[in-house]
Amino acid sequence: MQKVALIQSQAYPTKALAYEANERLIIEAAEQGAKIVCTQELFLTPYFCQVQDTKYFELAEEIQGPLVERLQALAARFEIVIVASLFEKQAVGIYYNTSVTIDADGEVLGVYRKQHIPQDPGFEEKFYFTPGDGGYPVWKTRYGTIGVLICWDQWFPEAARLMALQGAEIIFYPTAIGWLPEEKAEWGRRQHQAWETVQRGHAVANGCYIAAINRVGRETMETESGAQRVIDFWGQSFASDPYGEVLVKGSESEEEVLYFSYESKVMEDFRQIWPFFRDRRVDTYEGISSRWLS
Amino acid sequence: MQKVALIQSQAYPTKALAYEANERLIIEAAEQGAKIVCTQELFLTPYFCQVQDTKYFELAEEIQGPLVERLQALAARFEIVIVASLFEKQAVGIYYNTSVTIDADGEVLGVYRKQHIPQDPGFEEKFYFTPGDGGYPVWKTRYGTIGVLICWDQWFPEAARLMALQGAEIIFYPTAIGWLPEEKAEWGRRQHQAWETVQRGHAVANGCYIAAINRVGRETMETESGAQRVIDFWGQSFASDPYGEVLVKGSESEEEVLYFSYESKVMEDFRQIWPFFRDRRVDTYEGISSRWLS
Repeated sequence: MQKVALIQSQAYPTKALAYEANERLIIEAAEQGAKIVCTQELFLTPYFCQVQDTKYFELAEEIQGPLVERLQALAARFEIVIVASLFEKQAVGIYYNTSVTIDADGEVLGVYRKQHIPQDPGFEEKFYFTPGDGGYPVWKTRYGTIGVLICWDQWFPEAARLMALQGAEIIFYPTAIGWLPEEKAEWGRRQHQAWETVQRGHAVANGCYIAAINRVGRETMETESGAQRVIDFWGQSFASDPYGEVLVKGSESEEEVLYFSYESKVMEDFRQIWPFFRDRRVDTYEGISSRWLS
Repeated sequence: MQKVALIQSQAYPTKALAYEANERLIIEAAEQGAKIVCTQELFLTPYFCQVQDTKYFELAEEIQGPLVERLQALAARFEIVIVASLFEKQAVGIYYNTSVTIDADGEVLGVYRKQHIPQDPGFEEKFYFTPGDGGYPVWKTRYGTIGVLICWDQWFPEAARLMALQGAEIIFYPTAIGWLPEEKAEWGRRQHQAWETVQRGHAVANGCYIAAINRVGRETMETESGAQRVIDFWGQSFASDPYGEVLVKGSESEEEVLYFSYESKVMEDFRQIWPFFRDRRVDTYEGISSRWLS
């Protein structure tokens, strides 16, 4: 059994302040016995994708750079696995929404670059992010085999399945999702419920754990034309076991660290009772790779 | 908007009595304004798959035969779509767990033969049923485009996805699932929750409606060696909208007809707000057709 920590954080005015706040929470988690710690999506910055503005490209980091080196040192110092979600600059004009996974000895195990990129008013990600093309890697960390998907990926059963088929025991979803204030009264409850349900469904279908780490707090940004954009990030980070049972759930508004324990034995028992992987009709799934079949 | 009826029924001592009871409920549903009516899994018989016994092969029906003709007449008389789940005999030695879909003019639109076949103590389906090999057909009925999957299929996101990609607006799951009495106290709540959650997840991931029609009541059978097998079928048939919202839910123990309304507009609004089908990374899903990727 291993303890896992989810860092549900808010936005800070500068990357330095955001780093400090998250580092403090990561250390708190390590001191509480957590062995795997995951940040929310783009934890160093406000959710700049509310607007389309080239000035925000300057917020991006190179993976090989001081930020990841600091996280590596932190991982090695506390012997914890750290999953951190970053705005990555690969080259001039190529940016990704990326997570980096660092093992408990400080080694970078690899990155995942978000493959499903949203584009909606207030979530203008196709403007910033090149879609990832590195597959759906999973990593054998010191404390378990994990996969990391990012936010919009969480709506796609294919992504979760591809990680489970490689042995992921926990799928992490660093996330930035919230309500548009004008929609909240009518749609807020249903939107949140759909978000939680689809991920719990992935846990059941794959007989694994999932953990969603969402940001909290209201963020306001201005478009280039001066219009205001507002999102209330709904927090409520959670973890689910293979039965779709919510093991822990964060508040709607507070920065906090959430903990849950995961156990390989629970997964093994589940998959022996309900052997979905034995019975998958892999000879019949070819159409999944089509856009539409009608 | 169309009204849909789910016939949550119990087992009867004979096929004739089971037919009569279900016909009465189907007529009741039609009189209440339902336009699409779906039975539970293998509605004519007890759940004989509790045990492995060749004598139960005699319960099978040919699709072209008096039973389906009666259902066709019923559909035409009330101008309703009927989905019925049957134990099908195709040839000597080839039996399927099949659903037949009949349009509101009495025409048989087609059959679906269950593709994912379970085999567990008390659910000995691999003994009886040849796995279906007719793909995942959907049908344009007079009242909407529907797909039908059967019981164990409900745990597999691939099956739901393949129906949604062909335009299914409602996916029906005739079902026979229940508790083994000796497991109920410890596992009952979790098993039921997992079952409901994974299907609600399919509704969200695919932005469509789903409806699960489960049998109710305790059924006891004897194995050839005289041992007793008992299942408490847990009823709780339900329908979910695209947000994963449970629209209606049956009791744990009573035979009953459940109703819900579905509306294409709800699906269209959902998919415009959350355009998962726009953003599927069909170039990255090839591994789904593999048994294991590790």
